[in-house]
Amino acid sequence: MSYLTELQCAKCGKIYSADLPINLCECGGPLLARYDLKTIRKKINKQTFKSRKKGLWRFKELLPISEESNIVTLGEGDTPILKANKIGKKLGIENLYIKDEGLNPTGTFKARGASVGVSKAKELAIKTIAMPTAGNAGGAWSAYCAKAGIELVVAMPKDAPELAEKESFIYGSKTYLVDGLISDAGKIIANGVKKYNWFDAATLKEPYRIEGKKTMGIEIAEYFNWEIPDAILYPTGGGVGIIGIFKALKELRKLGWIGEKLPKLISVQSEGCNPIVEAFENGTEYSKFYKNASTIAGGIRVPKALGDFLVLRAIRETNGTAIQVKDSEILESLDLIAKTEGLFICPEGATLVAALSKLIDNGFIKQNEKVVLLNTGTGIKYPSLIDFDLPILKINESI
Amino acid sequence: MSYLTELQCAKCGKIYSADLPINLCECGGPLLARYDLKTIRKKINKQTFKSRKKGLWRFKELLPISEESNIVTLGEGDTPILKANKIGKKLGIENLYIKDEGLNPTGTFKARGASVGVSKAKELAIKTIAMPTAGNAGGAWSAYCAKAGIELVVAMPKDAPELAEKESFIYGSKTYLVDGLISDAGKIIANGVKKYNWFDAATLKEPYRIEGKKTMGIEIAEYFNWEIPDAILYPTGGGVGIIGIFKALKELRKLGWIGEKLPKLISVQSEGCNPIVEAFENGTEYSKFYKNASTIAGGIRVPKALGDFLVLRAIRETNGTAIQVKDSEILESLDLIAKTEGLFICPEGATLVAALSKLIDNGFIKQNEKVVLLNTGTGIKYPSLIDFDLPILKINESI
Repeated sequence: MSYLTELQCAKCGKIYSADLPINLCECGGPLLARYDLKTIRKKINKQTFKSRKKGLWRFKELLPISEESNIVTLGEGDTPILKANKIGKKLGIENLYIKDEGLNPTGTFKARGASVGVSKAKELAIKTIAMPTAGNAGGAWSAYCAKAGIELVVAMPKDAPELAEKESFIYGSKTYLVDGLISDAGKIIANGVKKYNWFDAATLKEPYRIEGKKTMGIEIAEYFNWEIPDAILYPTGGGVGIIGIFKALKELRKLGWIGEKLPKLISVQSEGCNPIVEAFENGTEYSKFYKNASTIAGGIRVPKALGDFLVLRAIRETNGTAIQVKDSEILESLDLIAKTEGLFICPEGATLVAALSKLIDNGFIKQNEKVVLLNTGTGIKYPSLIDFDLPILKINESI
Repeated sequence: MSYLTELQCAKCGKIYSADLPINLCECGGPLLARYDLKTIRKKINKQTFKSRKKGLWRFKELLPISEESNIVTLGEGDTPILKANKIGKKLGIENLYIKDEGLNPTGTFKARGASVGVSKAKELAIKTIAMPTAGNAGGAWSAYCAKAGIELVVAMPKDAPELAEKESFIYGSKTYLVDGLISDAGKIIANGVKKYNWFDAATLKEPYRIEGKKTMGIEIAEYFNWEIPDAILYPTGGGVGIIGIFKALKELRKLGWIGEKLPKLISVQSEGCNPIVEAFENGTEYSKFYKNASTIAGGIRVPKALGDFLVLRAIRETNGTAIQVKDSEILESLDLIAKTEGLFICPEGATLVAALSKLIDNGFIKQNEKVVLLNTGTGIKYPSLIDFDLPILKINESI
């Protein structure tokens, strides 16, 4: 069912076999899955997917699993793309869409990477996986590892969303909180990997999580009848989503299923942690480690992403951009989206509305352009962001 | 697009027009939507739905909306049905499935009723809706009313899940907490309805919520290729889901899309609030008001459901049963399902595993029967059920 052929280093181009567990290239670069696109093109066409059972495994030819029995699924993918007319009107744009990844298992887009990553780990007979996480990836991988019967060790900042901590716990992962950032959790996991021979599934340190994330790009292309939109805005922490979407679109182009034009890919970060924005503006290939990172959007509080150069490449090759917003703007946007579009989204997703407003103001996005905001998760996982005070009635009182 | 013809009282059979806003029959019975099934049968077949865009609006001929522009959707429906092999093996049953309604907007099956109910309210030009809720219906209706631009007044017990309170609040509903049960909230709303002329959308007091819920039944039939399973277990509060599934299956039977056999419909309640179980065991047509109701599964803490007789009818006509479980069993099941199937489900859904275990033990369900557990929502909305204590590492510590 899969047409996976090999892994290739995104930095130096070196080729590796996809038959064994592997992490990074010897040069330190992340490995990307390569497929026999020529044969796929002959065997199926882009309409093939439509008649299949919903979920990201519809795209199995473009995913890295050989044996169907190794697929670990909880119903991920095929999330809705909703027309956001009210917000669009408010911002002065006609064709605005929100892809709501909150309708995935565990409530975030992390389920996509986890489904494919854990399935491949099962196929490769890996017994114990370890990973640092800002929170939601830990929750998602915990769910899929529980289903697969694979042991998972998770380390996350102690100020990660409590719900993500509870998820890791209830799914039975070995969960550690770290008095620091995700980069500190990463060091602790890397030490454990050396000591105990766990398989390291940190962002981009294993090659298959991105394959799950890329299905967002295929779904967007399919939704618009393979006429891709003009811009996609994406809240950027580790950046696997934007790298994955870019990878998907290039694969679809090689398959001849979409035209030459790609959407402007736009990275959105918070002012309190904006390494990609800085690197983009400074014209550098890599980002600098962002010191004292701080934002309410924990999923994008990533001081230095391993795939920073791939994010920057995706932005530049698509004539996109990188832009930052304030935490106060995130909260305002979150409230606005709930009250107008009926979507209680995560703070990372809420960055996008604030960013879009700026991009329309400065002319980067035009009124007639078709724009997709990629909301990465549900707001339900961030209850502490909502301060409220409601009236309490006695049983004999009236409104 | 709709073949809705009229409304019919479920108690006395009286017919009403579906063209105006309406609540109960003059006899006090709930009204059910009736369709021109003969014409539907001529115009489409059961394969028609497959090629349509995913979500419950695929079944639009069997839903009550005339104008497509009145549909208020957030991507509800078409939730996954997952094979639960590990739990099945543990309980000694081969074909066990969980339908996971947690992947709906707002994280519960309430989104189905809200999507259809709010769409119909929009079509009928209703300006203000009011409803009592155990919590999750309030969250769901708040989201859809925000999207539709309809004002919503919500009253819920002050010990409703905090996340449901926050949802109602962030979506902009007028939200009141009540120092009592959902039945007390219901009285307060009923008074407000008289005073302010709001439209009362309490469970079964408006006829269309059930139409949304019934799509669960259509999806189950379709998933099993229109060979319906042997039993469906459903956690029963207001009972709209089980009534809706029963209604759907009878409509499918009249359409000739399924055979004569219906699944055993099984109502599961908590020992702390079991009016349906008592009525079933006592052989009465209606349930008695359950005094001092108390259970951790707030969604099924309904002392007396308006549709109790319809629930009991559904159970009896399908040779089903009603069964109760302890709160301690709910918590054990919740933990078991997370650790084996990778699903962190709501306490209402967790009742089903405990109940299934009893039904297999007492022989009501046989080893070779195909069983569906209808999990009504995500556990993410119930963080307070998870007590945990995780180790905290300093940044220079190691695992």
